[in-house]
Amino acid sequence: MKTNTFTLITEGTVSSPAGFLASGVCAGLKRSGANDMALIFSKRPANFAGSFTSCLFAAAPVVLDRERVLSQPFAQAIIVNSGNANACTGEEGYKRAVKMAALTAEALNIPEEQVLVSSTGRIGVDLPMDKISKGVSLAASALSENGGHAAACAIMTTDTRPKELAVEFKSVSGKTVRVGGMVKGAGMIAPQMTVPHATMLAYITSDAGASNAFLAKELNAALPLSFNRITVDGDMSTNDTVLVLANGSSGVDVEADPRDAERFAESFQFVMSSLARQIVEDGEGMTKFVNVEINGAATEEDARLCANAIANSLLCKTAWFGGDPNWGRVLAAAGRSGAKFDPSKVSLDYDSTPVVRNGRDVGTPEASLAEVMKKKEFSVSLNLGAGEASFTVWTNDVSYEYVKINADYHT
Amino acid sequence: MKTNTFTLITEGTVSSPAGFLASGVCAGLKRSGANDMALIFSKRPANFAGSFTSCLFAAAPVVLDRERVLSQPFAQAIIVNSGNANACTGEEGYKRAVKMAALTAEALNIPEEQVLVSSTGRIGVDLPMDKISKGVSLAASALSENGGHAAACAIMTTDTRPKELAVEFKSVSGKTVRVGGMVKGAGMIAPQMTVPHATMLAYITSDAGASNAFLAKELNAALPLSFNRITVDGDMSTNDTVLVLANGSSGVDVEADPRDAERFAESFQFVMSSLARQIVEDGEGMTKFVNVEINGAATEEDARLCANAIANSLLCKTAWFGGDPNWGRVLAAAGRSGAKFDPSKVSLDYDSTPVVRNGRDVGTPEASLAEVMKKKEFSVSLNLGAGEASFTVWTNDVSYEYVKINADYHT
Repeated sequence: MKTNTFTLITEGTVSSPAGFLASGVCAGLKRSGANDMALIFSKRPANFAGSFTSCLFAAAPVVLDRERVLSQPFAQAIIVNSGNANACTGEEGYKRAVKMAALTAEALNIPEEQVLVSSTGRIGVDLPMDKISKGVSLAASALSENGGHAAACAIMTTDTRPKELAVEFKSVSGKTVRVGGMVKGAGMIAPQMTVPHATMLAYITSDAGASNAFLAKELNAALPLSFNRITVDGDMSTNDTVLVLANGSSGVDVEADPRDAERFAESFQFVMSSLARQIVEDGEGMTKFVNVEINGAATEEDARLCANAIANSLLCKTAWFGGDPNWGRVLAAAGRSGAKFDPSKVSLDYDSTPVVRNGRDVGTPEASLAEVMKKKEFSVSLNLGAGEASFTVWTNDVSYEYVKINADYHT
Repeated sequence: MKTNTFTLITEGTVSSPAGFLASGVCAGLKRSGANDMALIFSKRPANFAGSFTSCLFAAAPVVLDRERVLSQPFAQAIIVNSGNANACTGEEGYKRAVKMAALTAEALNIPEEQVLVSSTGRIGVDLPMDKISKGVSLAASALSENGGHAAACAIMTTDTRPKELAVEFKSVSGKTVRVGGMVKGAGMIAPQMTVPHATMLAYITSDAGASNAFLAKELNAALPLSFNRITVDGDMSTNDTVLVLANGSSGVDVEADPRDAERFAESFQFVMSSLARQIVEDGEGMTKFVNVEINGAATEEDARLCANAIANSLLCKTAWFGGDPNWGRVLAAAGRSGAKFDPSKVSLDYDSTPVVRNGRDVGTPEASLAEVMKKKEFSVSLNLGAGEASFTVWTNDVSYEYVKINADYHT
């Protein structure tokens, strides 16, 4: 087995990489009174890349960030608010996102074009700029090398816990390079592979030196193995955003040596996929983590269609919640997914327990299957017997609690 | 307003049309001990047509019926069991479906090729032929002109009530023609327009005289306005079936006069759409009936994508359950649907209350919107401002009860 080239940093955060500061403060946007604004700041201008929702109703901050990713050489700060999505707010919403960036630039004394903005929360409500203004000041004053955790807490909405980590690796020169990240998201989560995009707010920081093009390439490579393979409820948000900043403070240009580029890629992918898993583990009202693995598909598209049909099936998700090994629902979802295969060649396993062979019940006692379904995490592995392509989706069950959270939701 | 050419028959059933008998009996397939087999019998061979699931794992009876629709000139009986789907049961399952038809033919003394078969219930369990055999005998003995209601009850699974009706119209000659129907289905319900198909078990009877080709044409015309515009949970079943039988007992060949053909079409479409509505009204755990109307789409496909994205969105469905006028979720679903439109030209109304104009909140107080959402039935009407195409889907909300029913389901 291959040894990891990186190690996990204890209590690592988005401010673990050198040269990054962060903070989380209360601007009064949430009725609950919880912290609702976060700031990530790089002491020096950082290279950056981003990926965004493909929803037509992209929120104002997404529109702004997209422009800046395409036009700016550097980013130096990311200002985030929860409690208000600044989505479906028209031209005025866009102006307010620009203003939010400008206020942040002013407080930090950096060019306003180097500030990125994110918002999450209720759709269609104008951003209250007085509160935002106050929050920006507070967040700027509170910046600290230990502020990463506070930032991860301040971006939460229906999340039950902050989601963050950091890793480090030794470069060829012996210098240490770090990659940190944080994410929020527990609902409105669905993969959308055709246009690589994020399905939540995710921020990755690194003290590696790397060009914008390199970061964009790594981001696109890591998305299919992380945020684009998770689904909680099949819904995609107006505000989905992944931003990555690399400020070079480690003194290591990871593009200069292919071995360093490789090590960076491994660390980066690990951080991305760990954050993605943490979202599913914190899925609204979830009680089970389910790996839906499709193998033996004719094409990767078939495997993807099939995995998503099963992972988003309300009948499968409620059966998982109930611990019901009802494999008929899994096959029915596969059968309507649009994937092409011969039903009489299909195999299904729950973890390593065979369920179906050649499209038919293999005779495993229901009690044995129910044992697997009692586990907090298990795999539903379907082999279509039609080829060599594979795709895996991470998802969870749908519980009473999911309905409660989403029927009652008001930020 | 156009006057209907037909009238509703009080307590009309599938055996209301002349020359039809029906029954519902207990074969012991359901653990509950409820009736679980139904039989529809036409005294004379009837012309017929059918439409079936497009799920790759089509159940054995679906495979058999499809063959008979394509190869046989007439059908004279439909035997149905609930409690076992005879799906994912391989070659043996097919043989058992054939046997079930043969037993029915024997009991009724008709050719076995003129018997159609349906099954619904648990997937992947072999059909217990001893019980089926007993049920066929009982059902044949119990046949009666008043047996329609018993038949509608015997095909129920998670349905809370039987769903049936019959109408009649006066033909040009003055003779009366009747159309009756029954349906079961409360979950695993989703439209699939690309391949016209049914999403439940539905049986339409008529004493009209009509060719198989005419019936097939009317069926295909009525599907988009009935069963293909409903969705309960976005799942499609392995057993979805619609069968229509017309035995000519009224003495009216509805193809002989275009006015009769038109009247038949109106009656037939009304029966189909009424049965479809009844399914949504009996949707598992539902508390609200929601008309999702898309207008102003560039193409009908765009309108359909958009309507289904909203109607199947867990976030919309749980908001409706909670009476939360969260229109952001509606717009977010539309935005990710794949439909093409300019977000700044979108309008949204809840019933006749304006919610969004030009993509922005129109300022209607949330309390007024909440009033609409409290109703047992309301419309979510989205105009995309991109063209002239429309599509409407009937759906319902997702409640705690939905999760409970589907987490606990075992026939």
